[in-house]
Order: sequence, then C-alpha cells, then structure tokens
Amino acid sequence: MPTDDCLRPPVLRPGDPVMLVSPSGPTRPERVARGIELLTGWGLRPVLARHAYARQGYLAGGDELRAADLNAAFADPEVRGVICTRGGYGAQRVVDLIDMAAVRRDPKVVAGFSDITALQFALWRGARLASVHGPGAAWLDERTPLSSAESLHAALMTTEPVTVAAARDEETYAVRVPGRATGPLLGGNLCLITASIGTPDMPDLTGAVLLIEEVQEPPYKVDRMLTHLRRCGALDGLAGVAVGQFTECADGWDTTVVDVLADRLGDLGVPVLGGLPIGHGVGQLTVPVGTEATLDADAGILTVTPAVA
Amino acid sequence: MPTDDCLRPPVLRPGDPVMLVSPSGPTRPERVARGIELLTGWGLRPVLARHAYARQGYLAGGDELRAADLNAAFADPEVRGVICTRGGYGAQRVVDLIDMAAVRRDPKVVAGFSDITALQFALWRGARLASVHGPGAAWLDERTPLSSAESLHAALMTTEPVTVAAARDEETYAVRVPGRATGPLLGGNLCLITASIGTPDMPDLTGAVLLIEEVQEPPYKVDRMLTHLRRCGALDGLAGVAVGQFTECADGWDTTVVDVLADRLGDLGVPVLGGLPIGHGVGQLTVPVGTEATLDADAGILTVTPAVA
Repeated sequence: MPTDDCLRPPVLRPGDPVMLVSPSGPTRPERVARGIELLTGWGLRPVLARHAYARQGYLAGGDELRAADLNAAFADPEVRGVICTRGGYGAQRVVDLIDMAAVRRDPKVVAGFSDITALQFALWRGARLASVHGPGAAWLDERTPLSSAESLHAALMTTEPVTVAAARDEETYAVRVPGRATGPLLGGNLCLITASIGTPDMPDLTGAVLLIEEVQEPPYKVDRMLTHLRRCGALDGLAGVAVGQFTECADGWDTTVVDVLADRLGDLGVPVLGGLPIGHGVGQLTVPVGTEATLDADAGILTVTPAVA
Repeated sequence: MPTDDCLRPPVLRPGDPVMLVSPSGPTRPERVARGIELLTGWGLRPVLARHAYARQGYLAGGDELRAADLNAAFADPEVRGVICTRGGYGAQRVVDLIDMAAVRRDPKVVAGFSDITALQFALWRGARLASVHGPGAAWLDERTPLSSAESLHAALMTTEPVTVAAARDEETYAVRVPGRATGPLLGGNLCLITASIGTPDMPDLTGAVLLIEEVQEPPYKVDRMLTHLRRCGALDGLAGVAVGQFTECADGWDTTVVDVLADRLGDLGVPVLGGLPIGHGVGQLTVPVGTEATLDADAGILTVTPAVA
C-alpha cells in the first residue's frame, strides 16, 4: 500500500464512462477511432467532450472551449476518467482556467503525454493529482502496438505497480549513471517541463525522479532545455532521472542527443537511467506520474506505484 | 545626456582593437572575412580570439575555451570592443564563468544577437552593461546590406541615439497597439529570453521595453514562449513591446506568427510596435540594449539612447 503524498483517483472499471478531451491540438474522428475501439474493448464507455473535434489553427478550438471541456469532464459525476486525444500545443493556455476544487472533489484519472505534461503539472500543483503518462486516444497501432495498449490498460484499470525496463534497442540506452533512487516520478515532455519554469506549475523536484522525453528537437535545443533546468536550480536536490525516448532528435551536427544527455545529466551526482520506452517512439509504455517510483539504474528498471487506487 | 542607470562602455574609435569571439556556435575564417573587412574599413583593428574558430559539435569549442576567450577579451586592456562572430547555441553554458569584476573594471561594448542575447543578459545582470544588438562578424551582405553595416557602425562608433522605424514590408508590421512607452530596452531573441526565466539572468522587465525577435520557430512555439513569459509574471509591469523580425516562422497551420503575436501581446495593456527590422531577417538594423528607449507606437518609431559613451 503506497503511502506517498498524492491524490490517487479511483481505478477505472468496466462500464465506467471516460471522456475524450482535446486540451491541446486538434484531431479528427478517424484518428481517434482506434482509440475508442481499444477503450471500448476494455469495457470502458468513451464519451466525446463537446468540443473534442473543434479546430482553431493549431488549437482544438479556442481557450474557452478547451477549458470548458476539461471542466465539464471534471465536474460530471458520471465521468470516471479523462483521456486526452492528443498533445500538440495549447494546454498551458487553459490550465489556469481549470476548476481545481472540482478536481479535488471528485478525482479522476487523466491520461495523456507530450503537451499534456502541462495539464498534469497543473493538476499536480492544484490538486496533487496523480496522472497517467501514456498514449492519447488518437491511437496509431504502428507506433503503439499491443504492448503499448496493454501497458495503458494496466495503468488505468489495475492497481498494480508499473515496471518499465531499459531496452537495448532504445537510442538513449547508453545514458546511464549507476545507483538507485526513490521519489515521486514527475515530468514528461522536456519542452513542457522547461516551459513551466518560473510558473506556479513547475513542481518542486527536490527528492523527485525526473522523467524526460522529447520529439523532434535537435540536440542543441535539448542542451538548451537541460542547461535551463540546471541554471534555474530545478535539478538541485533531484533524486534521479528517468530518460525516455528522444525521437527524431538528430540533426546535422556530430553531437548526438545521447551525447547531450550524458553531458548535461551525467554530472548531477544522481542515478540516471536511459533507454526507457516512454515517449514519442515506437512501443511507448505508460507510467504513472506523481506517485512514488524507484529508479534502479543498476538493474535498469523503473518501478512506479500506481496512479489509481 | 542620458541619465539611465546602466554602464556605458566607451565609444569605439578608429585604431581601436576589437576582439572577435565565438561564445556560441562554430564558424570558419571564410564566413568572417567580410565582417573583418567591414570592421577594418571603419578603422577598427579586428583581432581573433584564440579559439574563435574552435569546433566541438554545435559549439565553438568546449565551454572552458569559449569562456576563456570571453574573459581574455574582457581582461585585455588593449581590446576596446567584443564582436561576437555569430550566435547559434552555447552562450548560456559559459555565462556563469565570466569574470564580471573584469567587465565592470574595464567596460567594453559587446555586439551580437540571437544566442548572444544570453550573453548580453548575463552582462546586464552582472555589470549593468549596455550592449549592442546587431549582426555578428560572420557577415553576409545578402542578409545585411549597406544599411545594416551603417547601422552597426553608428551604434559602435557614434554616441547618437538610434532610431528604427517600423517598415511596411516587414511581416510583423501589422502587430501594433497604439501608445508611447519609455524604459530600458531589454531582450533580443525570444528563445533565449524564455530560456532565462527562473535564472539569475532574467532581467526585471518592470518599466522596460521588451525587444523580441525570432527565427525558424513555428507559430505554436512562439505562442508557447509568449505564454510562458505571461504565466511566469515576467510581463507584469512591462512598459511596451518592440517586435522585430520573425523570420521563417511559418508552418503548415493557418494561424500565422502575426496572429500569435497579436493574440499574446495585444491584451497586455501596453504599446506594441511591430515591423521593426531587427532580427534574423534581411536588412537587420542594430539597436542598443540596456539603455533608455522610447517606443512610439503611434508614430511607428523606436528610439534608443546609445550603448556607448
């Protein structure tokens, strides 16, 4: 029985309605069809948020619509979980509009990643809500095959701890500093973590295991973000770093993203475990965020207590 | 005679040695040849920093070398100005290694932009040193024609105020909120401004005119950066915004960077003047940073007191 200090929403059970919400970028029905099929196959009852398919440039509708959908999902007593359709960009524009009292009153599991890191940070700040860092409902079997679906299913619908092993075929596998660390697992997309610095949403990482993953950012920008985290003091007192996938982060220079990760994380004096299949790459696995984790960089394993109870 | 609270280095005079330094990305002799020709033509005596052409991936040599070059330039009593060859990335990795006592002891004008914004922020923090936001010595006549050269020359070698008019053919010309603001001009590249949030280098923008420019960042990322600045409180108490060039910032979405700038800056309640030919675009003009400026968004003119005395 985990004793860490976070708010665990109830585990999802067959028959539970879950709302599909688009707090960030726009999507289309055909892109979400497979996700709906999966959720339905698990016995859940996916319900579309009113503006789930709204579009306004790179946003899934205006800020008011996206915030209204989130608040409707949090307020509706029928809804038992909030499944984000996708990331993209836009969550930070609406997180200050979330009714945190409603979140605290009726905690619900929120699943998503990438731009949804911003939403999960805000829910952590406002309600200490544990969340699920995993694929959105805009599901692509090519990227997230059966193992990904099983991983999301387990994180949402069981109360078992989640174990993720570093995988040799992952690009960041070479990034490792031995040791073992325990603390809440906090983080997600590196861009969104750094875009939270100086805002109320930036979590205190003292004693925490920081999770980072990224997509389509060249090594020098990954360097800039990690240098930013170092220079603002956010990494002081960190317990460890869980390094997920850095997908399509190569550019023309001869410094790779692995070089950058080793350079910027290797001297922090804490265990670092790369090669975790968490992020935008093929075979993305789901992990709880906000809950107690053990990063065992000797054994190459990250174990996270469940987000749901 | 300006009375604002900054350290103005001496104006450059014919015969003055200036050191070409690469605090960020690497360059090559052939790329700096035209810049050396221009500086020499103004009567200056360009001297290469020891590691000006060093290379280590996307950096102009290791951190120790780049920091050593900066400190050598600041410490050498012969050197009267520091001209950065180019931006790129890397200044934030070395700014904490700068000998600020040397900077304060013998203030020298530092010219550059883009990644050099990070250096100029650090010099502002550590020495209240006014700087020159203008092209580096890796000069391209196609991008920075005669008018650009004259503008840099005037900012370095005269003590006249600098005036820049909004230009109709600039993409950001449509971004405007009427009014008039006075305060120190602070800023530069938007990525580097946001990468300073939460660090000691982030200047207090209360009462300041914020200068922003960007290159090759899609509208949603410009949105993210401006949203970040808003959410961390950096724009509270701002006097005005000077919007320079946003070069090659288009992407596939139908929201343009002009839409984003209007949306994120238009409701701040301060004057905003777009269309300033300052940044990575063709015809870049030079402006002092750190010194008192008047942003006249009615007349479409930014006037800045000189960086040098």
